[in-house]
Amino acid sequence: MTKVVKFGGSSLASAEQFKKVKEIITAESSRRFVVPSAPGKRFSNDTKVTDMLYGCYDLAAKGKDFSSEFDAIKERYYGIINDLGLDLSLEKEFETIKACFIGKAGRDYAASRGEYLNGIVLAKYLGYNFVDAADVIYFNDQGQFDSARTNEVLPQRLATLDNAVIPGFYGSMPNDTIKTFSRGGSDVTGSIVAAAVNADLYENWTDVSGFLVCDPRIIDNPQPITTITYKELRELSYMGAGVLHEDAIFPVRKAGIPINIKNTNKPEDMGTMIVESTSQKPAFTITGIAGKKGFTVVNIEKDMMNAELGFGRRVLEVFEKNGICFEHMPSGIDTMSVVVHQAEFAPKEQEIMSGLHRNCHPDTIDIETDLALIAVVGRAMKSNRGTAGRIFSALAHAHVNVKMIDQGSSELNIIIGVNEADFESAMKAIYTIFVDTQL
Amino acid sequence: MTKVVKFGGSSLASAEQFKKVKEIITAESSRRFVVPSAPGKRFSNDTKVTDMLYGCYDLAAKGKDFSSEFDAIKERYYGIINDLGLDLSLEKEFETIKACFIGKAGRDYAASRGEYLNGIVLAKYLGYNFVDAADVIYFNDQGQFDSARTNEVLPQRLATLDNAVIPGFYGSMPNDTIKTFSRGGSDVTGSIVAAAVNADLYENWTDVSGFLVCDPRIIDNPQPITTITYKELRELSYMGAGVLHEDAIFPVRKAGIPINIKNTNKPEDMGTMIVESTSQKPAFTITGIAGKKGFTVVNIEKDMMNAELGFGRRVLEVFEKNGICFEHMPSGIDTMSVVVHQAEFAPKEQEIMSGLHRNCHPDTIDIETDLALIAVVGRAMKSNRGTAGRIFSALAHAHVNVKMIDQGSSELNIIIGVNEADFESAMKAIYTIFVDTQL
Repeated sequence: MTKVVKFGGSSLASAEQFKKVKEIITAESSRRFVVPSAPGKRFSNDTKVTDMLYGCYDLAAKGKDFSSEFDAIKERYYGIINDLGLDLSLEKEFETIKACFIGKAGRDYAASRGEYLNGIVLAKYLGYNFVDAADVIYFNDQGQFDSARTNEVLPQRLATLDNAVIPGFYGSMPNDTIKTFSRGGSDVTGSIVAAAVNADLYENWTDVSGFLVCDPRIIDNPQPITTITYKELRELSYMGAGVLHEDAIFPVRKAGIPINIKNTNKPEDMGTMIVESTSQKPAFTITGIAGKKGFTVVNIEKDMMNAELGFGRRVLEVFEKNGICFEHMPSGIDTMSVVVHQAEFAPKEQEIMSGLHRNCHPDTIDIETDLALIAVVGRAMKSNRGTAGRIFSALAHAHVNVKMIDQGSSELNIIIGVNEADFESAMKAIYTIFVDTQL
Repeated sequence: MTKVVKFGGSSLASAEQFKKVKEIITAESSRRFVVPSAPGKRFSNDTKVTDMLYGCYDLAAKGKDFSSEFDAIKERYYGIINDLGLDLSLEKEFETIKACFIGKAGRDYAASRGEYLNGIVLAKYLGYNFVDAADVIYFNDQGQFDSARTNEVLPQRLATLDNAVIPGFYGSMPNDTIKTFSRGGSDVTGSIVAAAVNADLYENWTDVSGFLVCDPRIIDNPQPITTITYKELRELSYMGAGVLHEDAIFPVRKAGIPINIKNTNKPEDMGTMIVESTSQKPAFTITGIAGKKGFTVVNIEKDMMNAELGFGRRVLEVFEKNGICFEHMPSGIDTMSVVVHQAEFAPKEQEIMSGLHRNCHPDTIDIETDLALIAVVGRAMKSNRGTAGRIFSALAHAHVNVKMIDQGSSELNIIIGVNEADFESAMKAIYTIFVDTQL
């Protein structure tokens, strides 16, 4: 059995955390391939090493003195090395990094050094092989992950090794420069490695015991989600339920490898299993609730719109020409509402309005701002009649005005639009009706 | 005060009905302009004169003998004329019509003679002027109503008259041939006449006392709708709540003239007032429920669809290229459902499927057939929180599985998709929760 284990920044922020990580890894011989992040925050006001590296590089790139900032980074690593009692010098590495900062090796290079150095430290501490991600993870000229080239190199390389630490977050471009995934991209590296070694499980170790039914900033102590499907997760994370990098799902999903989100500080907790599909009944009718603020609705009215071939296409064309993705498009008989991200829409507002007038000749258009969208997601919703009734009754009792409803025939989710002012009470009402009253 | 009064076929099916019509017209001197349909059915197995004319003309056009069929039509008119004791001969008219049938004057010409002759009879009976619609209502070369040309002639002509009977349903083309509106088009003529004389009210006399909250074939003895807005009506009639020709709304709505649907057999009933907007509270939270069977849903799934600029536009483009109007397009995060008319979609199914694959590269597409759509419509829904909750709770109690929900931010309606097998029970459940429990 082979597991790929990825550890987030808070799991590797200090020597104390490194010890927990080693205990976890050595507890099972199957944990052969390890993907570390850069050291994260040790306390709430602390700075992540990645941010220190960005700051330091920005000074260097402007030709300013960055020695005290650079020393602070060295101190973070030597603090860990000394506390762990390791016989390890990173002087050569730090010299190279310093030289490359002056030589303007790029912000991606700078940021990636956090994982690179942490990988060397962790490999030494575990007695594992170190494999530089720059030699096995590739991007193409457009800066996108190059799975073809990576698949030619990475699986073969890892097949020769009993174990390895492969730093997360970065890889190399065709011209050998360093390129990173977007922030949180170590999750993606872990997923790529898991697919490459055909792992039985991809464990993603964080500082939470998996996903929660609702955002803990809104609900006190929400229930955990023990099993979630990829689809459910995608819907919830789209709406802002964080923890896992979105792109981390594809490599393992394609290979049929489940993901287990685990808590480094509470390894005994089951965490959340992310699976393709499952016969396991979820604890509640809903798997999770997530939501986002900051949407705008453009309401378009035109008599006989439904009978006008191409009307919907022409409406969407206007948004597309202005580079705006639409989120939802509920429609009545003579009305069509296009829901968009407020921040993207606002600067293009007048171009879009005049485009709609020219392209679609509507009777009226009006714009409503400050809408929040809530996704109620659950694979069990399809077989539980009355889910919609419970949701909307609960919202009515909570005095929430429902501005928009969108349920497609997948029956996996219901999307509800409410005023931003009602967002928290709406989330609470839905959580309560499905979770608290169910207990 | 000026009212335009339009009478439907059943209101003018016999001498007995003509008497009721005369009583109604003479009861108010404002009822100066009258638009009649052709004589309709006198009993359920009877044939409408319009259908008799079509049948007769079809024989004539094939060069067959149509004299007995033609005599049957003459009998219908002479029956009315004799029973009313009128001193009126239509021999000259019938000779002309016969000659034109043989000369292949067209199906539209044939059909229009029902209204034409009935107009002559009614004008004589009322002592009103007769104005042939062919001289005042115009179509353009594309066969569409030509409002510009009509507005040049019709208002001037009617301004010179104290009263007039103008037959409904037809007008003339630029080449002087006769052209009809689609079936039920006398409603449209009435509306055009009302706008032309700037009427205070357009009375549309039928055989029902206005609109009902629900289809009486589904609900026994449903409540009447006393006041409905144009928008509400449009939504309900789109979904199959008949009575008024769709195109009849535009001319009067543009001119700000309300429509009153009245019952010739119960003139004392208030009927339904159709208005632009009203401060009148409706009797129930919902104004009406209507629905239609025969829809198909095309479910399209693709990971990260939401982030793909132009995805929705490309989907709709495929339907448009195949000449298919879509009804609704509810969407999740990675899913989009396109709801279309089954009868339109089925013959183009494979073209559309391959078009979607080529144009949009979805992960999966599946097709679900036999969906019914239900529109719950009401201007009071916006201010009554909990409407959605009541609907979906009622549907759950009735064991109806909700396949799709679409509520735009107009909050004037909620569109619900259910399996066709659940259609009637869904309609009943919604009617009961809003109307019966409210009483």
